[in-house]
Amino acid sequence: MTGSPMRGFPEAEFAARTEHAQTGMAAAGLGGLLLMTEAEVRYFTGFHTLFWQSPTRPWFVFVPPVGKPVAVIPEIGAELMRSTWLDDIRTWSAPCPDDDGLSLLTELLAPMAQAGKTIGVMKGHETALRMPLGDYERLVAGLPGLSIADATALIRGLRMVKSDREIEKLAHICAIGSRIFASVPELAHEGQPLEDLFRAVRREGLALGADDVPYLVGGADQGGYRDVISPPSRRPLANGDILMLDTGAVWDGYYCDFDRNFAIGTADDASRRAYDVLWRATEAGLDAARTGATCRQLFQTMQAVIAELDDQGGDVGRLGHGLGMQLTEWPSHAAFDHTVLQENMVLTLEPSLSYGDGRIMVHEENIVVRKDGPELLSERAPRDLPVI
Amino acid sequence: MTGSPMRGFPEAEFAARTEHAQTGMAAAGLGGLLLMTEAEVRYFTGFHTLFWQSPTRPWFVFVPPVGKPVAVIPEIGAELMRSTWLDDIRTWSAPCPDDDGLSLLTELLAPMAQAGKTIGVMKGHETALRMPLGDYERLVAGLPGLSIADATALIRGLRMVKSDREIEKLAHICAIGSRIFASVPELAHEGQPLEDLFRAVRREGLALGADDVPYLVGGADQGGYRDVISPPSRRPLANGDILMLDTGAVWDGYYCDFDRNFAIGTADDASRRAYDVLWRATEAGLDAARTGATCRQLFQTMQAVIAELDDQGGDVGRLGHGLGMQLTEWPSHAAFDHTVLQENMVLTLEPSLSYGDGRIMVHEENIVVRKDGPELLSERAPRDLPVI
Repeated sequence: MTGSPMRGFPEAEFAARTEHAQTGMAAAGLGGLLLMTEAEVRYFTGFHTLFWQSPTRPWFVFVPPVGKPVAVIPEIGAELMRSTWLDDIRTWSAPCPDDDGLSLLTELLAPMAQAGKTIGVMKGHETALRMPLGDYERLVAGLPGLSIADATALIRGLRMVKSDREIEKLAHICAIGSRIFASVPELAHEGQPLEDLFRAVRREGLALGADDVPYLVGGADQGGYRDVISPPSRRPLANGDILMLDTGAVWDGYYCDFDRNFAIGTADDASRRAYDVLWRATEAGLDAARTGATCRQLFQTMQAVIAELDDQGGDVGRLGHGLGMQLTEWPSHAAFDHTVLQENMVLTLEPSLSYGDGRIMVHEENIVVRKDGPELLSERAPRDLPVI
Repeated sequence: MTGSPMRGFPEAEFAARTEHAQTGMAAAGLGGLLLMTEAEVRYFTGFHTLFWQSPTRPWFVFVPPVGKPVAVIPEIGAELMRSTWLDDIRTWSAPCPDDDGLSLLTELLAPMAQAGKTIGVMKGHETALRMPLGDYERLVAGLPGLSIADATALIRGLRMVKSDREIEKLAHICAIGSRIFASVPELAHEGQPLEDLFRAVRREGLALGADDVPYLVGGADQGGYRDVISPPSRRPLANGDILMLDTGAVWDGYYCDFDRNFAIGTADDASRRAYDVLWRATEAGLDAARTGATCRQLFQTMQAVIAELDDQGGDVGRLGHGLGMQLTEWPSHAAFDHTVLQENMVLTLEPSLSYGDGRIMVHEENIVVRKDGPELLSERAPRDLPVI
């Protein structure tokens, strides 16, 4: 692709991430971080593979108090891990149900256990334990003296603020996302099964330079859609449908995540009004998305506009979120989230509402918070509900 | 797509799965199963969505000793879950970091805790805990009297043997996979960056009727590739390259997973020999993949042929695996796996070897074990290394 950024990151970026983590670890009294999820392993090493889709093998990275991270991984990943900046790569022939990395981890962590230290593991909101729970329990039981603390806040704080190179990748995939949506009026037509449109949109995304379009959801129904997480049906698009497409396309491991609404043939008044309210709610969000504001304030600002039409809220649980190596990341634009917006956070603004007889509508834009206000990474949705 | 099977499953299939689970629960002394991973939730409910790609919200299904499963899920999924066979759907407005389903789960499980019962959670090989570990620990601590047992063996036993309708979906996507690979000689050419070929292969898969091609890995290098899990580079295909493409395409939530090797322009002798050994190892696997044989025997049979060229083994850890709703499922064709092959297991045969100076080669076919022997779901790879 002409105009694509460079893939990957220079070693200095991984070194800086690791040093920032180590500063946080020292402040939190942590003797190390044991990480095992795709985004965290990639964040500290650059190890980038689709192989995470196989649930069979666990992968571990240990961030020590000083120096480079240590990889404890299946042998099948050794060649790729050796291409990263890491030096200490310990492997085993996996799968091995009786000992899938546990001996290697125990050897690594035993000195810390003997010294009565605490290590961090991600145990908090929006995390999962990507190893068998039984193995985790065995590992901990085999390391008496070792304390485990929740490292979610530390990692969250690092990952929420993006580097220039991360933003460059995110801007690139968001621009591709905008071009995908710009082509929808040519790809969609009355009588077309929604399933076929989804396939055409995915193909278009690949043609426009996305590495993949792993996430594509949406809906279409007369006078509005009712569900935003279903796979597409074979129901043909019909005059009077409101169509929504929400895409997570990916480039070099970074996502865009925004949606667009369209009317097929004609737009009903209720849907046009819902669109107008959401467009203005987004505008209010853009005004409010400034450094120093909180996610809670951003939520309240958008919700105040949404309340013109819908005072229920809550269905979707939030009005946007962070964006990066994952389709959805911390923070959440929700009443519970007091995160203060900082420069170089990449966020979605995602106001939604219910209207009519159980219809819903969702808008979404992607932004980066800059010193002097938000910068749109997605091309702003049209002012009025577009009719195809 | 003409000739596609029906999407989804009739209610009777979910009822049968649930009854089989309940029989196993009774035998194992389990008062219920608490499940939270995509494949298990879909297996018992039919709940099918790409929304699992967002790590933000946990989803729970509880299988009681009798009757239909109970869903405890974020409100955003309520409409879709109501379209399944379930009656009891309990929701909360998620995300809610302070109480992401825990109150609802506690209410559901409290009677079992009070009665000192045991419930099953998946804690074993090839599983993960798809909820925050901290929340899991809080949940268990809040239910004194409740015992947690590992339900992996029970679920594994159910999911490894596929129903006719599951096999129909797997056969369909494998046939699409075969057509994708048949088109590679037209899609690939000397001078083409591997990244562009990957994009073309994904587009072709969608055009041929795959819902998506989420997994596509491979490699290409002079006289053989060295790594099978990397993303594609921008290195152009060159005369003398050995190219491997391994694809997981998906239709209605079921995967194919097989690969093909090609030589670009000319094939070197070492690669042709490696190909021949792997082709024969696959043939031996096809002879051996009969009901009553074990995965260990299947492994040993293939390994005996591979040993003609490579006696190391172990790099990849196994020579094939189960296939279904996940790209890789239990069992493993490995020395540690004594699983007895049963009728209607769907498996990959995936012999691999190292040769020359750090090259590797991998073959893969997809089969269903029938009463009288294996049936190929993938179109058998050509006898000799094809040259493009």
